[in-house]
Parts: sequence; C-alpha cells; structure tokens
Amino acid sequence: MTLAETPAPPYTAVIFSSIRTDNEQGYAVMAARMEELAALQPGYVGIESARGEIGITVSYWTDDAAARAWKQVAEHTIAQERGKTTWYADYRVRVCTVERDYGHPSTM
Amino acid sequence: MTLAETPAPPYTAVIFSSIRTDNEQGYAVMAARMEELAALQPGYVGIESARGEIGITVSYWTDDAAARAWKQVAEHTIAQERGKTTWYADYRVRVCTVERDYGHPSTM
Repeated sequence: MTLAETPAPPYTAVIFSSIRTDNEQGYAVMAARMEELAALQPGYVGIESARGEIGITVSYWTDDAAARAWKQVAEHTIAQERGKTTWYADYRVRVCTVERDYGHPSTM
Repeated sequence: MTLAETPAPPYTAVIFSSIRTDNEQGYAVMAARMEELAALQPGYVGIESARGEIGITVSYWTDDAAARAWKQVAEHTIAQERGKTTWYADYRVRVCTVERDYGHPSTM
C-alpha cells in the first residue's frame, strides 16, 4: 500500500475507525470487496488503511456528494452480508472536508 | 487504545499518513513523546493510531487554531530530534474539518 494521491484541497475524507470483534469469518473477503467497490464509485480518489489495536481506513473523495453516495453503497453491501456488529465491536465514521495538506518535499 | 471520544461536529481532524524508513533508532521514544505532548496542548480532543504497511495517526482538535498551534509544536519537537526524513520515507498531513460523524449505536 502506498499513500493516496489526492488533489489540491478542498476534497473529502471519510475516516472509519474501528475495533474488531473476534469474528474473522468472512471479514477479509468483505474488507477486500469493500475496497474494490469503493474504487469503482464516482468521485473516488484513493484509500489508506492500517490496523493495530484499532483499525483506521481513510477513503478520499472529490466532494461530499461522492462520499454520501458511497455511504449508501457501503451500508447496503454490509447489510447484505452479516451486519456491522458481527465484525465491529465499536466504530466511528467521520466525514471531513480537507482544508489543507502538506507532505514529504520529494513527493509534493 | 480505544476510539477517540469527540464532540459534536464541527471539530478538526489532522490525518498523518506515513511510510516508515528502516531506521528504528529513537522512533518509539519520539512517537510516544509526541502523543504525550499532543495531549498537553490546548484544544486537544483525542488521538487514534494504527500501523500496517503504512501508518495512520489521526489527532482531533477543538478547532483549526488548535491544530495549527500543534503543528508548530510538533515540527519544533521533531526538528530537535533527527528530522522527519530519518523515520519517514514518505508522509502526508491533511488538516480537515469534521462535518458529521456517526457510529456504533451503543456508543453514540
């Protein structure tokens, strides 16, 4: 995984923070499927994901409308599977407008 | 680590995404020190952090001014140590306004 290539601000970030249950059944397949589906959505920019004691996945979108549309698709997809409480003991979704960004001189 | 308890939006999120170098020397001490320092800053709300192939740390602040003040402290602190390029092969910082959030029914 590399860092997401994002456009000049403003754009939209969706921060999904979670604590997993012990239930691994179907999780990896679902997670991979969600990333594939996200990449097919209109307005998709990129995604970054990491997991330690908690998991953090940040998806980036051209604008708020694209992030809202993705929420509908994601919830429908998850509902078709087992429901979030199967895999997540706790989670938060935070929808944000990126106001400014900066980074490594060699890459920006 | 638990998920951060954040106030009703709007508030500010600083997403720090990074790829580490192989240099472990001093890194854990610096990372722990940065988290301690952040928690002492005015306007600090909470922090979430995870590391896999990439690392993602999201710090939450009451407002943009608090996030800007933290940037000055963080850069000064890092500069006193070895400089970011010692530990990070690549990184991005994205400063965001959280517009809305939602989460697990049992916790919000």
